Amino acid sequence: MVNDSEWIRFKEEARARLLRDREIGYLDPDIWDLLEAFMGREKTFTYSSCSGRITVIDSFYPWSRKDSSVIYKNHLMLPSDELLRIIERKHMRRLWLIVQGPILHAYTKDYEEAWTILKTAREVGFKHSGILVENRKGVLVELRTGIRMVHLLKDKVPPTLEEMEEIVKVANEILAKGKEKKDQLREAILSIGNNSVKLGENPEGESQLHNSV
Amino acid sequence: MVNDSEWIRFKEEARARLLRDREIGYLDPDIWDLLEAFMGREKTFTYSSCSGRITVIDSFYPWSRKDSSVIYKNHLMLPSDELLRIIERKHMRRLWLIVQGPILHAYTKDYEEAWTILKTAREVGFKHSGILVENRKGVLVELRTGIRMVHLLKDKVPPTLEEMEEIVKVANEILAKGKEKKDQLREAILSIGNNSVKLGENPEGESQLHNSV
Repeated sequence: MVNDSEWIRFKEEARARLLRDREIGYLDPDIWDLLEAFMGREKTFTYSSCSGRITVIDSFYPWSRKDSSVIYKNHLMLPSDELLRIIERKHMRRLWLIVQGPILHAYTKDYEEAWTILKTAREVGFKHSGILVENRKGVLVELRTGIRMVHLLKDKVPPTLEEMEEIVKVANEILAKGKEKKDQLREAILSIGNNSVKLGENPEGESQLHNSV
Repeated sequence: MVNDSEWIRFKEEARARLLRDREIGYLDPDIWDLLEAFMGREKTFTYSSCSGRITVIDSFYPWSRKDSSVIYKNHLMLPSDELLRIIERKHMRRLWLIVQGPILHAYTKDYEEAWTILKTAREVGFKHSGILVENRKGVLVELRTGIRMVHLLKDKVPPTLEEMEEIVKVANEILAKGKEKKDQLREAILSIGNNSVKLGENPEGESQLHNSV
């Protein structure tokens, strides 16, 4: 398993990357608090994350990466007029509207911490969570809910205006459910203790981080 | 971790349960070959499984268990006239058509075997796979693909006949993609060796199983 000095280095790198990503606007607009809660734990750092989002993709199958293009993406909401515009444009394959709940990947220093995180996450509804791999960086956990919509928006036949209204309403509801879960996860992680560290940008925050890992 | 004699007992119980489930028709119609491949491994037994299926549920949200009822389920295909009948009946909340790829839960005797299974499964496309828990029975792995459709069939507005035709066509295609993956998983598991044991019902098969675990 990863040794102490390597762990400190990996975590420091992860922390620097996060601050940089936030700086350049690469992070989801509403994920920072959650990441901060995880980074505050001595034996955890976050690796990748999504706060939940709505996408529309042009693809025969919603899970394909190749022969697939993302034609819309929003982490906050899908406006109805946007969907109308999307439907009116030409597409190549099939249009899928996908709503995804929050997903978080985090490395933990050991299995004990991995199980603590997993147990906590499952209790607030991240039921599709597990350990993905163990490698030189530690134990990689994935936290994921069952909150999801994978809707065939259009093959040849476009949805009616009435249907579009319903789809937008339901998609936004589902996105909101995911955001609620994200906030619940943050609270749960903060509540289990060992969250001594603040992922602040001030020198004090930094030195606290260094001391505690 | 689980000791040898306990492992033999847990695996024997799992094997008996499987044979019983097959006997009473409780197993999915097309999962036996896959389970047999896993049960043939000395350090693995299957715990629960689904070969992939299409369901229609009446629920506000597709992931809810409470306030939710399954009104249709089929592991082999959804006929178009069936969907028409479903749409015409009254429903309480919202109708969701869900296509799910194959899912398998298996216990392994140790982490080494768990990683072997996970690596093999990921290579054939079971990308959403991981370790769920470690307990007195061993290490529980979940094998799962990204093959999925979670389609809002009807809130208030029913789909048109044309749309229904498309939905049925695509849903059946996706189900078939899942079945392909299931077969690929079986082949991959058989190909990695250590599959000395046949899960047969004849006494020879049984004694082979006892000898090898």
